[in-house]
Amino acid sequence: MYQRMPNGIQIVEVGPRDGFQNVKDFIATEDKISIISSLIEAGINSVELTSFVSPKAIPQLADAQAVCRAILEKYGDTINASALVPNLKGALGAKEAGIREIACVISVSEAHNKANVNRTHEESLVELGRMLEALPDMKVRVDLATTFACPFAGWVEQEAVMRLAAEVTKMGIQDIVLCDTIGVATPDRVFNTSALMKKAFPSVNFALHLHDTRGMGLVNTIAGLQAGITSFETSIGGLGGCPFAPGAAGNTATEDVVNMFTDMNIQTGIDLEKLLGATGLVAEKVKAPLTGHMFKAKIYDCFAQR
Amino acid sequence: MYQRMPNGIQIVEVGPRDGFQNVKDFIATEDKISIISSLIEAGINSVELTSFVSPKAIPQLADAQAVCRAILEKYGDTINASALVPNLKGALGAKEAGIREIACVISVSEAHNKANVNRTHEESLVELGRMLEALPDMKVRVDLATTFACPFAGWVEQEAVMRLAAEVTKMGIQDIVLCDTIGVATPDRVFNTSALMKKAFPSVNFALHLHDTRGMGLVNTIAGLQAGITSFETSIGGLGGCPFAPGAAGNTATEDVVNMFTDMNIQTGIDLEKLLGATGLVAEKVKAPLTGHMFKAKIYDCFAQR
Repeated sequence: MYQRMPNGIQIVEVGPRDGFQNVKDFIATEDKISIISSLIEAGINSVELTSFVSPKAIPQLADAQAVCRAILEKYGDTINASALVPNLKGALGAKEAGIREIACVISVSEAHNKANVNRTHEESLVELGRMLEALPDMKVRVDLATTFACPFAGWVEQEAVMRLAAEVTKMGIQDIVLCDTIGVATPDRVFNTSALMKKAFPSVNFALHLHDTRGMGLVNTIAGLQAGITSFETSIGGLGGCPFAPGAAGNTATEDVVNMFTDMNIQTGIDLEKLLGATGLVAEKVKAPLTGHMFKAKIYDCFAQR
Repeated sequence: MYQRMPNGIQIVEVGPRDGFQNVKDFIATEDKISIISSLIEAGINSVELTSFVSPKAIPQLADAQAVCRAILEKYGDTINASALVPNLKGALGAKEAGIREIACVISVSEAHNKANVNRTHEESLVELGRMLEALPDMKVRVDLATTFACPFAGWVEQEAVMRLAAEVTKMGIQDIVLCDTIGVATPDRVFNTSALMKKAFPSVNFALHLHDTRGMGLVNTIAGLQAGITSFETSIGGLGGCPFAPGAAGNTATEDVVNMFTDMNIQTGIDLEKLLGATGLVAEKVKAPLTGHMFKAKIYDCFAQR
């Protein structure tokens, strides 16, 4: 029989952050709120709502405060709402909006870290330390960008991932996301690195953030699951993209992942039909191509065997 | 470490048959020949060239004789050239064109077999018998359509696959292709059925024919590989589609599969750059959307780490 699978997995919806930030035309704040609401109504209970960054850097997310306040007012403690922050200033903004979990990105490839946030590893770790000190009650997770490959430096060595993970866990981080930032990881790499990390840091909660750039979003999801990871960051409609791969698919689509797990009898807590409804709302409100498969496959209607 | 993988796998290119037959606008015979030639020049050594069907049923493949003759004259014994045939008449046509391997389709779901070829299982097996008797020197492989799921009957039971496989092996068939005709199989189903079939029929050569309708083309490929299957039917550019899923992705794209295996250090004998060149030729000559990921992901140029 197929390798023993868990009974259920956890989806973390990152479309409102990773997806929306890649959309050029401004999405009205009320549309953002109604899309996020439809996702939550479909059963998604963990959402990265936005990013607290300079509105000059990412004008699309200039309404971070308003989005967070509206969603938290509506759903409060019934969901796990997080936001990405690039620095202490962003973290303070998130706190002000009522957010209790932030995500900080550090790239395993230092070349990518410099390009992405203009910091060395040391500088990123100093900033992380400042956030942890200033906000002792905030839950902080670390996204390890370019865990598998870097557009500048090529394949990334597992030792580099290990070293950075050791640094952040020493600082008290308990949640780490392994990110295939440009979407070129292969299932053997995802499996091997995931298994190694879980063994080396048994008390850390690991998640995977995968892109479908080369069509390997789902195979890498299963490879991670086979290595024991059960939390996955996905994006509604496959929004997200990769600045180094124009035209390519974006993040692994939430509905593709939920469909696969539903048909494998692995619980996600999400209602696929309602979720496809949310994808339809994204298609209506967001001016960006949806690259997920389920939305294009009208077969859903004629093959709903569940 | 990731489940032990083989050193190499076999690709069977079915784009010129399964892909082209789904394209409405006629592709000039010389374009068909140049596309197939570019695939062979990229290292593909096994191709399903066409189908010998009624030109009224599939006008696109009315030039089956001319295509086969041109390719066989150019490449002869250096490649394994096959053709699909629906009946003895088609098989005789294939023989006349110099083809030495034919593929016969029987759907595991009888409802689909009726819709596809208007025959019961018994009638299909009688026709298969006639071909085997009339053409004793022809290699005959059987494609088991709807091995995992049927658009009319839902999920297909493994027992039904076993029964039909037992029937055809009793008649001397040594090559069986397990086909996910509408592209809804999940990796657990692909693994379990593949493993079961290999165990039950240890002397049979099994291949998988997968579609990417719901984005599971590559995860199902790896699931089959983990069950010991090392031969995969794929289609250049992801041509193919599914009549029940308008707008959906087609067959698993040859270049997506070759890219994944190349990056996993599993030999395919195919040069990825030349293969992407062949995809470009398809994009130029064939009026159909290409649904494979690699062609859309311009990232290839900035991340060629091999």
